[in-house]
Amino acid sequence: MPTTDRAAFQEVFPSLAEDILAHAKTSNLPGNAMEWLEKVLNVNVPGGKLNRGLSCPDTGLALLQKPLTDEQFKHLSILGWLTELLQAFFLVSDDIMDSSITRRGQPCWYRQEGVGLVAINDAFLLESSIYIILKKHFRSHPAYVDFLELFHEVSWQTELGQLCDLITAPEDKVDLDNFSMEKYMFIVTYKTAYYSFYLPVALALLYLQRATPSNLRQAHDILIPLGQYFQVQDDYLDAYGNPAVIGKIGTDIKDNKCSWLINQALQRCNAEQRKILDEAYGRKDDVLEAKVKVLFKELDLERVYHEYEEKIVGELKTKIAAVDGSEGLQKEVFESFLAKIYKRSK
Amino acid sequence: MPTTDRAAFQEVFPSLAEDILAHAKTSNLPGNAMEWLEKVLNVNVPGGKLNRGLSCPDTGLALLQKPLTDEQFKHLSILGWLTELLQAFFLVSDDIMDSSITRRGQPCWYRQEGVGLVAINDAFLLESSIYIILKKHFRSHPAYVDFLELFHEVSWQTELGQLCDLITAPEDKVDLDNFSMEKYMFIVTYKTAYYSFYLPVALALLYLQRATPSNLRQAHDILIPLGQYFQVQDDYLDAYGNPAVIGKIGTDIKDNKCSWLINQALQRCNAEQRKILDEAYGRKDDVLEAKVKVLFKELDLERVYHEYEEKIVGELKTKIAAVDGSEGLQKEVFESFLAKIYKRSK
Repeated sequence: MPTTDRAAFQEVFPSLAEDILAHAKTSNLPGNAMEWLEKVLNVNVPGGKLNRGLSCPDTGLALLQKPLTDEQFKHLSILGWLTELLQAFFLVSDDIMDSSITRRGQPCWYRQEGVGLVAINDAFLLESSIYIILKKHFRSHPAYVDFLELFHEVSWQTELGQLCDLITAPEDKVDLDNFSMEKYMFIVTYKTAYYSFYLPVALALLYLQRATPSNLRQAHDILIPLGQYFQVQDDYLDAYGNPAVIGKIGTDIKDNKCSWLINQALQRCNAEQRKILDEAYGRKDDVLEAKVKVLFKELDLERVYHEYEEKIVGELKTKIAAVDGSEGLQKEVFESFLAKIYKRSK
Repeated sequence: MPTTDRAAFQEVFPSLAEDILAHAKTSNLPGNAMEWLEKVLNVNVPGGKLNRGLSCPDTGLALLQKPLTDEQFKHLSILGWLTELLQAFFLVSDDIMDSSITRRGQPCWYRQEGVGLVAINDAFLLESSIYIILKKHFRSHPAYVDFLELFHEVSWQTELGQLCDLITAPEDKVDLDNFSMEKYMFIVTYKTAYYSFYLPVALALLYLQRATPSNLRQAHDILIPLGQYFQVQDDYLDAYGNPAVIGKIGTDIKDNKCSWLINQALQRCNAEQRKILDEAYGRKDDVLEAKVKVLFKELDLERVYHEYEEKIVGELKTKIAAVDGSEGLQKEVFESFLAKIYKRSK
């Protein structure tokens, strides 16, 4: 399956930043604020892995089964960048709420020189930019209203996920009774799966006018479990991955994260082990963190994970094989997603 | 001119909160998060002065020149509550960015027990709620897309105003060279006038299908200067109003606010007076604040304000008298706004 040329995709972003700045210019935004806005866009939007953004033109390729025209490439890349703008909106604000230190190897935006809590308003501007671009480039597209409603709904879903995450796993108050596999699945589905997996595919379906109710439902029913699997894997790698390969040291245990591993441990531990978890989980302490890791080993969570992985991948393959292509959907849309994720080590 | 019954308007809000909670319920949002969301809505949306919200049905009354039908009242009240939701989104987040202490006589939301920076995500949820309500109640209205685009554009404008305000007048770094009357007018226009004055009237025009380009332009050209006047007055009352009447003690001088008074002072002061302003403005110090107030007196800003007020009100009256009603606009829409504002003391 051919994929999108990363450099060609990246080349689209500067013109979108220009569109946004030109729109600000029509309001006579003072010079110091224009410079600030330009920096907000250039620091926070490009520079990530771009997986979500690239998924839009990649989905277009898989749907059409032939190279995209220049116009299709441009439009699907713009829609891809809108998913990256949405992500930038969430990352800039999540980093503040989570007191994060670095992002993509740089200090988080709110920690950069002279920024601070102005970053909250900057996050709003990143979100608003989505609608400026949609209006400029897609106002006459038959799916314009659907694009707007999709971004509204996915934003809302992500915010519900973030709310549940924040109040379930506060960093400063460990209470494992708050956790449950049900809440965990809600958080990963709403906070990550919708915007990372469903959104870019739904955008490409809408753009190519193949977003029939059946196609959207099929995409949803494969991509949401796929996104859940992706996040479970992420949680597994946080404790079991090789930091040299992943590029960071996992901190979920110390940070009191409502992760897949702790929820599996809670389902499997005896009273004595539970006591250890209550005392050692979510503490900023290397020795206590190591105790939790030993307990994870005792509970054989590695095996539990591999069994989960084989089961979910089997189910996903079955669903993908059963895709009904009669309304223009293609199995390839999902196969490439699954191939990128299955047994990844980073 | 008859106006909207405040109690009847207020009675509409609980059903909107229910709509939003019902929508969250369709996602199986866990119970603790449902309770949190309910509190976010009930603490932050009602309880204000409701001037913006009431302007929607009031504008409807002025446009139709007869009592609203039950349906018109309900719909215009819903649109009014959407302006209050937008304001709640901005106030919750502005209070964090400004380190504010109280709002409407209560601790600011982010300062309430157990909330903290989760309030950032709560602000997002308040914003997203606007689009849930619009979709539920106005999806089949001919102006649905215009409603969406109006909220997007006004949000963006308000964010540009907030950006300019935050970087022009940081609380911790006084530099009066940052200030200018031009920046001041940008900030008040974008941060306040669009959402507080233009938005509710434009919503009513759209709802009643009188939002012709000419009517929107006329509304804009009266309401934006009216909103600027309102804010200038607010700045004047901050230093010259009676705290017992206004209900709060002005803090603009201590807070290094880029207010109308300091900008007027900067335009009128000699080198010696400028030195005093540089040393005394924006300091958390009663003696220095008093020095600035003495200087304002010396520069006779009271007279400057009254001259400004008479001039702008004269211009507004002329514009209102010249309203072209041939496409269904009515002078009364603007007369009642002006009457509420002219020579107010709180």
